[in-house]
Amino acid sequence: MKAVVLLSGGLDSATVFAIAKENYTPYALSFSYGQRHGFELECARKIAKGFVHQVIDLDLRAFGGSALTSDIDVPKMSYDPTAIPITYVPARNTIFLSIALAFAETINASTLFIGAHAVDSSNYPDCRPEFLAAFEKVANLGTKKGLTTPFHICAPLLMMNKAQIIQEGMKRSVDYSITSSCYDPSHNGLACGGCDACTLRLEGFRANGLQDPISYRMGPCR
Amino acid sequence: MKAVVLLSGGLDSATVFAIAKENYTPYALSFSYGQRHGFELECARKIAKGFVHQVIDLDLRAFGGSALTSDIDVPKMSYDPTAIPITYVPARNTIFLSIALAFAETINASTLFIGAHAVDSSNYPDCRPEFLAAFEKVANLGTKKGLTTPFHICAPLLMMNKAQIIQEGMKRSVDYSITSSCYDPSHNGLACGGCDACTLRLEGFRANGLQDPISYRMGPCR
Repeated sequence: MKAVVLLSGGLDSATVFAIAKENYTPYALSFSYGQRHGFELECARKIAKGFVHQVIDLDLRAFGGSALTSDIDVPKMSYDPTAIPITYVPARNTIFLSIALAFAETINASTLFIGAHAVDSSNYPDCRPEFLAAFEKVANLGTKKGLTTPFHICAPLLMMNKAQIIQEGMKRSVDYSITSSCYDPSHNGLACGGCDACTLRLEGFRANGLQDPISYRMGPCR
Repeated sequence: MKAVVLLSGGLDSATVFAIAKENYTPYALSFSYGQRHGFELECARKIAKGFVHQVIDLDLRAFGGSALTSDIDVPKMSYDPTAIPITYVPARNTIFLSIALAFAETINASTLFIGAHAVDSSNYPDCRPEFLAAFEKVANLGTKKGLTTPFHICAPLLMMNKAQIIQEGMKRSVDYSITSSCYDPSHNGLACGGCDACTLRLEGFRANGLQDPISYRMGPCR
């Protein structure tokens, strides 16, 4: 059975890709959407190596509105578990799931995998279970295929924190050295070690008693 | 008040644009999505002249799957009011509304206009009221703005047939000579007169005792 897997090149989607592979033939889908860290896309290509991988160009910079796609400084050490962060991108998961839906319908796949998680994901509204359930309804009302063979949005990490996600990945031998989480990597892909994404990632490895296999430009003092 | 208006350059969205202008400052949004009729986009530019108009590149041809984006012949005289037509594009309105949602959130607009209609729209699943209601729910669960200021999907043509849509446009002096509906226009924009879209359009003008102001390459015998 085929499944479309949204693959950013980050730790979460790399884990989801490994989970999806257990029961499906994964069709990876990534976006080049004007993100400042093109390095993430290189990671996605490595993770999906040997499988079908579509990269769709979708430049959202014309709209502005997020630190990930414009020139706002990426906040360091600002993690607040109760607030929607400045790195929120308007309607991002709605857009990504919509295009994944078109891909899935075209290849006749009924399952869409997404690495959303609602536990320590900084309160992104489009990572919550109620959002994903609502999108599943849209998928089944708004497509030809959905009217007869329902789509299922599969978010296996939804209720996991970063440490649990890493445990799931380690069980499946995910190579986290070819993943990228940093919001502000250097040109050669070195992570900053200080943004929300780096902070959560480092805490996740630490909680498992593991060393994060990627390199940080801040050095070992963390 | 601002509103985002999905504007294809066709008769329906030109009418919606005129309706939206009555009560909102319209922000037009069009897509260059690998459609074979770039002429439609030129029409959209003319209709939106004097207003903000974003054209987003989104090439869906990699997925294939529709006569509008690939090399399948466009069917002529095939209109069947009970079937989903070959011109169905997987998840098209879901994708367009998603990107419109991002645009709306960025400019702080709460209203999204779409020219969907469910009466003689050839049974596209993503033109039905239940689909639009489900998408509105997604918009309000999946965005930062939607959590506090709800979005509203406005489809003023939803329960109109083509003749009624044209009446609404004529009341508002819509210039239908700069619209394009044909699925298979010639390079200089002449409509074929035989595809589903031309058939419905011509019937709509005829039912109002009007002459369609655009040119058809089949000549006057229709």
